[in-house]
Amino acid sequence: MAQRAAIIGGGVIGGGWAARFALMGWDVALYDPDPEAKRKMSEIMAGAARALPMLFEAPMPPRGTITHCATMAEAVAGAAYIQESVPERLELKHKVYQELQANCSRDAVIGSSTSGFTPTQLQEGAAHPEQIIVAHPFNPVYLLPLVELVPSLKTAPEVTEKAKETLTKIGMYPLHVRAEIDAHIADRLLEAVWREALWLVKDGIATTQEIDDAIRYGFGLRWAQMGLFETYRIAGGEAGMRHFMAQFGPALKWPWTKLMDVPEFDDALVDLITEQSDAQSGALDVRALERLRDDNLVAILRALKGREAAAGKLLIEQDTRLRAPLAGSVPLVTVRRTVPVDWADVNGHMNEGRYGQVFSDASEEVMTHVGADRAYIDAGHSYFTAETNIKYLAETLVGEEFIVETRVALGQGKKLRLLHEMKRPSGEVLATCDQFLLHVSLTTRSSCPPLPDVLARVEALAKAHADG
Amino acid sequence: MAQRAAIIGGGVIGGGWAARFALMGWDVALYDPDPEAKRKMSEIMAGAARALPMLFEAPMPPRGTITHCATMAEAVAGAAYIQESVPERLELKHKVYQELQANCSRDAVIGSSTSGFTPTQLQEGAAHPEQIIVAHPFNPVYLLPLVELVPSLKTAPEVTEKAKETLTKIGMYPLHVRAEIDAHIADRLLEAVWREALWLVKDGIATTQEIDDAIRYGFGLRWAQMGLFETYRIAGGEAGMRHFMAQFGPALKWPWTKLMDVPEFDDALVDLITEQSDAQSGALDVRALERLRDDNLVAILRALKGREAAAGKLLIEQDTRLRAPLAGSVPLVTVRRTVPVDWADVNGHMNEGRYGQVFSDASEEVMTHVGADRAYIDAGHSYFTAETNIKYLAETLVGEEFIVETRVALGQGKKLRLLHEMKRPSGEVLATCDQFLLHVSLTTRSSCPPLPDVLARVEALAKAHADG
Repeated sequence: MAQRAAIIGGGVIGGGWAARFALMGWDVALYDPDPEAKRKMSEIMAGAARALPMLFEAPMPPRGTITHCATMAEAVAGAAYIQESVPERLELKHKVYQELQANCSRDAVIGSSTSGFTPTQLQEGAAHPEQIIVAHPFNPVYLLPLVELVPSLKTAPEVTEKAKETLTKIGMYPLHVRAEIDAHIADRLLEAVWREALWLVKDGIATTQEIDDAIRYGFGLRWAQMGLFETYRIAGGEAGMRHFMAQFGPALKWPWTKLMDVPEFDDALVDLITEQSDAQSGALDVRALERLRDDNLVAILRALKGREAAAGKLLIEQDTRLRAPLAGSVPLVTVRRTVPVDWADVNGHMNEGRYGQVFSDASEEVMTHVGADRAYIDAGHSYFTAETNIKYLAETLVGEEFIVETRVALGQGKKLRLLHEMKRPSGEVLATCDQFLLHVSLTTRSSCPPLPDVLARVEALAKAHADG
Repeated sequence: MAQRAAIIGGGVIGGGWAARFALMGWDVALYDPDPEAKRKMSEIMAGAARALPMLFEAPMPPRGTITHCATMAEAVAGAAYIQESVPERLELKHKVYQELQANCSRDAVIGSSTSGFTPTQLQEGAAHPEQIIVAHPFNPVYLLPLVELVPSLKTAPEVTEKAKETLTKIGMYPLHVRAEIDAHIADRLLEAVWREALWLVKDGIATTQEIDDAIRYGFGLRWAQMGLFETYRIAGGEAGMRHFMAQFGPALKWPWTKLMDVPEFDDALVDLITEQSDAQSGALDVRALERLRDDNLVAILRALKGREAAAGKLLIEQDTRLRAPLAGSVPLVTVRRTVPVDWADVNGHMNEGRYGQVFSDASEEVMTHVGADRAYIDAGHSYFTAETNIKYLAETLVGEEFIVETRVALGQGKKLRLLHEMKRPSGEVLATCDQFLLHVSLTTRSSCPPLPDVLARVEALAKAHADG
């Protein structure tokens, strides 16, 4: 049975949490008294359901339900994990915890999306402070892996552990923040940049567009993969971090930033930034911008995944958690996935070359299924593709779900012939592939029969598929 | 004849400039009195030559030479563009400009890589202040497009224009900074983050690793594509930027950051950060880290290129500048490029599916060559691939250069058959592809003969290739 999460507050952040939990197979009970809550949730879910599955090669779990509840009591009944994302007013949060704790299980984790308050502040006056922990996510919650997890001294260690486990399961990276400070870690950095950026705009040095360009054409690209310190370590060259600091540390003494002071947040500044932002991005509404953002994030995350680097590594770990062994059906269902944005041109058609990749992935699943897995390859044996014949029967669009059904047409000695059909869930065939593989020794680089166990399984499959 | 650039100072930044200019076809004269300059330059060039060509689908121009010069006078002779990247000491920079201007052309641009000084400061005491402009790049200079271009009131407008033109030609994005301030735009933001990060480490809130994780798993991913303001505009939801500011503007008044004060940059802090950085990244030397960084940057930049978004758009523009019409050779040389990191697994082998893409790109070049170009497609006609037969003959490695030679084997009515050979520069054949295309009407979605002009060219090619 699916586990249950309760989401309290269904705005941009709460809705993002609900979408991530549901797409990762949890049943979600949502409480938000906003009369628009249903519409907002369905819009957020549409974006999340499009983007999140694109991050993974493994099949997604069966999607959980999202139930809109009339009361908090109803929402938290049976919930193993509760996430609060109500507005940033401490007295409001205290009231919410009172009601939650009067109704929820003592074993449930209560995470808070607060970006500013410490867990100790949140726990003030709570009947069960040990259940409460800060779990501060980043927008869009359904795509970005980071969640700052901040326990107080009163938070029970098992709550922290359970929160880590749950958040990891739904594909996030819980960063355990070991000290309580206002705004945790990331928002302190963001706040520093935000202040400086406001000064630059207010003083007429740069527009919002120019500041964004300075970030996305420059250090933003560095930070997406390495962050600040590792980037600077490299800038120190052969002499490393100490050299970098010797060179650039003194710059701290220069009168560079205006951060000693806070700009007056008056109407004039708000107007100025709003006007510049309209000029920069006003041609698109927020849904269109969100979609651009999500598609770009998917593409960047998948680029890092291909490199097994930074946030991409987290996706690979999530794939491992999501992946199950192939069922022994006839034919084998070797692939079940969604077409990600990086497989398509901007018109949304899956690129020709990706069909080859799909069928190659399908073959790899067959190999794993017959025991020619990673360990087998590491031991020096593998199948190599010798020839591929693909027929393109219908156009495949970005965001489409599809499966590949595979039959072993020949499995004899070193020869393996696979017939793949790539299909829509409706059964419509999108493409077929006739693939001929040869078993090789990775040491001699020439062909040879597989080891007996693998050969036996290949032969059994060929027989079953000929009969089936 | 190749244009000449003079690079004064061959450290990480100057060497990066030299590599970018040379890879973009300029002859480079380098002056650096460091006895290690040649070794350092060749190491930087090795990294740049590996990474930069991966960003482009178009063939790179013939590589320019890099000459190490014994004097500044020798280096600047005949240079149309001069870039100064000597250490950040104003009196040293003034001395360099004196020597440069005693020897260089009055038409040359003199750009400075300074991250802190204003152009007015740089121009003090110069014989020809109008030649001098700040052109502040970001490490690695050969990959990141951003260059902050800051003229003073004394900088000649034609110098600013020429600098923009040159920097654009070598694939950079010159961001015209309209006001002179210390540290321009990007480094003010970086400085703000750096200070705050130092506090977090000094106060024991977070380690360098934790801070880097908070960035690369969170807002770093957002900033790589949209920057700060557009990201926040979206966070404002349907109500936009004004709403975001109403919600989060007041946070400025909170006692969040410690930026009103500067941490004491003493030995204890330097030791602490060095130790943490060693623990985080010390397993790899700087060359290995640089390579990881570069490969990740290539992958992210190419992901954005696939999306035609952010810095990826700049790459597409550079492709357009680099691309020339196909020569009418027999066979046609339809592709000339490098295998980028995102086409390979982490073991460095080009993925099977990318062969399909290579041959599809080759076909597209043939289509353009016969007049079935973007305008033809927009008018409702195109060739669709009906069948592809690929033979994989040798393994192709990431970073390898290769070409595709294409023959038109059949060009008759709606039928087009192409035979592609993918080859190493040595002539070794990596893969072949027999591709059958049908001409279609994009309105009826069914096959039909091409328009007469296109058909005539296809028939002529088929005849020439049968004879050739």
